[in-house]
Amino acid sequence: MKCAGTIDVRDVDESSINIDPIQVGGRLTADAMKAMIAYGDGYSVCDQCRKPFRLDYIRTPPIDQFHRDLASFVNMDTARVVPGARRGFQAVADAFISAGDPVLITALSHYTEVLAIEGRGGVIREIPKNESNIITSDLAAQKIEEVTREFRHSPTLLFLDHFDYQYGNCHEVEGIIRIAHQYDVPVLYNGAYTVGIMPVDGKKIGADFVVGSGHKSMAAPAPSGMLATTSEWAGRVFRTTGVTTDVTGRTFGIKEIGMMGCTLMGVTLMGMMASFPHVRERVNCWERELANGQKVVDALMAIEGTVIKSEYPRNHTLTRVDTTGSFDRVAQVHKKRGFFFSSALKGKGIAGIIPGATKVWKFNTYGMTGSQAEYLAAAFRDIARENGLAVTD
Amino acid sequence: MKCAGTIDVRDVDESSINIDPIQVGGRLTADAMKAMIAYGDGYSVCDQCRKPFRLDYIRTPPIDQFHRDLASFVNMDTARVVPGARRGFQAVADAFISAGDPVLITALSHYTEVLAIEGRGGVIREIPKNESNIITSDLAAQKIEEVTREFRHSPTLLFLDHFDYQYGNCHEVEGIIRIAHQYDVPVLYNGAYTVGIMPVDGKKIGADFVVGSGHKSMAAPAPSGMLATTSEWAGRVFRTTGVTTDVTGRTFGIKEIGMMGCTLMGVTLMGMMASFPHVRERVNCWERELANGQKVVDALMAIEGTVIKSEYPRNHTLTRVDTTGSFDRVAQVHKKRGFFFSSALKGKGIAGIIPGATKVWKFNTYGMTGSQAEYLAAAFRDIARENGLAVTD
Repeated sequence: MKCAGTIDVRDVDESSINIDPIQVGGRLTADAMKAMIAYGDGYSVCDQCRKPFRLDYIRTPPIDQFHRDLASFVNMDTARVVPGARRGFQAVADAFISAGDPVLITALSHYTEVLAIEGRGGVIREIPKNESNIITSDLAAQKIEEVTREFRHSPTLLFLDHFDYQYGNCHEVEGIIRIAHQYDVPVLYNGAYTVGIMPVDGKKIGADFVVGSGHKSMAAPAPSGMLATTSEWAGRVFRTTGVTTDVTGRTFGIKEIGMMGCTLMGVTLMGMMASFPHVRERVNCWERELANGQKVVDALMAIEGTVIKSEYPRNHTLTRVDTTGSFDRVAQVHKKRGFFFSSALKGKGIAGIIPGATKVWKFNTYGMTGSQAEYLAAAFRDIARENGLAVTD
Repeated sequence: MKCAGTIDVRDVDESSINIDPIQVGGRLTADAMKAMIAYGDGYSVCDQCRKPFRLDYIRTPPIDQFHRDLASFVNMDTARVVPGARRGFQAVADAFISAGDPVLITALSHYTEVLAIEGRGGVIREIPKNESNIITSDLAAQKIEEVTREFRHSPTLLFLDHFDYQYGNCHEVEGIIRIAHQYDVPVLYNGAYTVGIMPVDGKKIGADFVVGSGHKSMAAPAPSGMLATTSEWAGRVFRTTGVTTDVTGRTFGIKEIGMMGCTLMGVTLMGMMASFPHVRERVNCWERELANGQKVVDALMAIEGTVIKSEYPRNHTLTRVDTTGSFDRVAQVHKKRGFFFSSALKGKGIAGIIPGATKVWKFNTYGMTGSQAEYLAAAFRDIARENGLAVTD
């Protein structure tokens, strides 16, 4: 069925249990859907925009209050909305990095951090992961020392993912930030996989910047996200224009350079705002989410030859699994080859795994009910049994 | 009525004739609304994302084709979608400008161009406008000469608005670009007020970059927009990452630095795509739009003391008007003061003028029917007469 022109209707989240690693935290709430329908038109939030003509000052709809709520949600001093977490990385990179500056990421950092640094000509250095795929304080300390020796000054910035996109592993953010601060390295906490799905306390963590993703973890349309910071850094990352033009002598008020003025002037912001009361509540249900994920992980571990590549027990609903010794063995002899697996899942109403993938793949159980988790766990076990793999009870 | 939580329903475009200067070209088509409902969830366009994992390669929905269509729509070689025209400016500024470089804008340039240049430390120089508020080829030539003498090399880049946001005046873009090219100055054509509402031929104009705004002029949700360029510059502005990390040796495929990887991974893009077949057609109706605008402008000119500040006859539906000698005279003695005017308009079902504004203000008639234009024209005349202003027939 087409929804418009040649565009198919999308109903994967209505018709299936979706376990796509990046999609589950960004599904809209019913309130976001309603707000989206009301605020779909282009510049829909600008009806009541008055002096000083900036998005975060608009009172109707209550965008100004939302900005304060966002800051307090992650316990930071001030926040802005941005078109995706990546645009938060970019704004911070722009404010801090000059060409040739050493900038730290980790061995499990997301590619968008790399692009933000590369865009400013920063020299990227990775903090290694340990044998369990964890970024530790010790490894961070060692790397900061190394880089400081190499460049004769400490790194300009550190981008640190609390949970990484590859394993969904929990890294030692508090310890690492404490050490980074001993070397005066400001730290950007990448909360793309935390802000909006589990509690995040920026001050407790010690972060200089907290970045969240609306479309990844805050039940918001894309592109959306947030960048929060402390009073110490707000003036730098949210610096306002200082230009007076040469001919007309124009100035441009309090527009923020790093934000490029206003950022989300319509539906993306309204979706984010409408979901926010629900998002603020749902972060308190993280333990339940982990319990659901654990059921599925345990089912996979019960299938002979299957290896959970993520840390165990799980601290996140995103999990990396290696089924080279199980489902991929089936794929070698199945008439559908590797497609048997996604096809079998599809037959059971489960979506979100790349068709053909039977070796190393990821899934995310975020947002499902307990019975959906049990159904999914049973589905994995059943597909294994149906294809002759041993499953322990 | 609330649509979600504390958020009021927005129905200004359903309940009124909206003449807001920035909103009218961004109202969604019915198809965009339908696509938005289907693709509201966060990363909704990523279901079928396969290698090389980049937005403009996705075939289902037909995002790859849409990118080709966009390029051909403005007759350029290649195009990308961006989160608003401003992010197109930023990408070009990032690729060209180093600190201290002279960069040209015009006396009527939009503030987002200023921020893009300021963000890279460029030194901004304005091409003056003439006494009719037009940017001419002669003034451009003169300024390029001046700047070249001042900096001992020609400007790095020129940002040029075809129609400006203040007057909606038409500037001599073809002539200016021809001259800029004689000095080897690449030109970014800012089509925020053209692409999507009137025909734009980038090659004919000679533009090096064509930027359009989805939420301003392409009937798309915010933030959205496009950046198109020639084969000559595509490799520079859409350069791909070249990083190999030091510890893990990771590389990051063909992700584009200036785009920060993928840009519009959900509802904003789908709205833009669903509207596109209609947008492609509607640009051919520009003469009808101008005729509607002219009716309204003529009505305003018939009100004693009213001055049209934009060029006349009008070449755009966005018009700047000075009613200091008419409606503002009424405001001096009216019990509602300046609010009488927006209040009277509201009483007639007309929205989009800042409440209290009776001196210099702007309106945009884009997208209205002929009878709506006549109604609006009559409304202005009636409000004038009802308040004792002379109106010629």
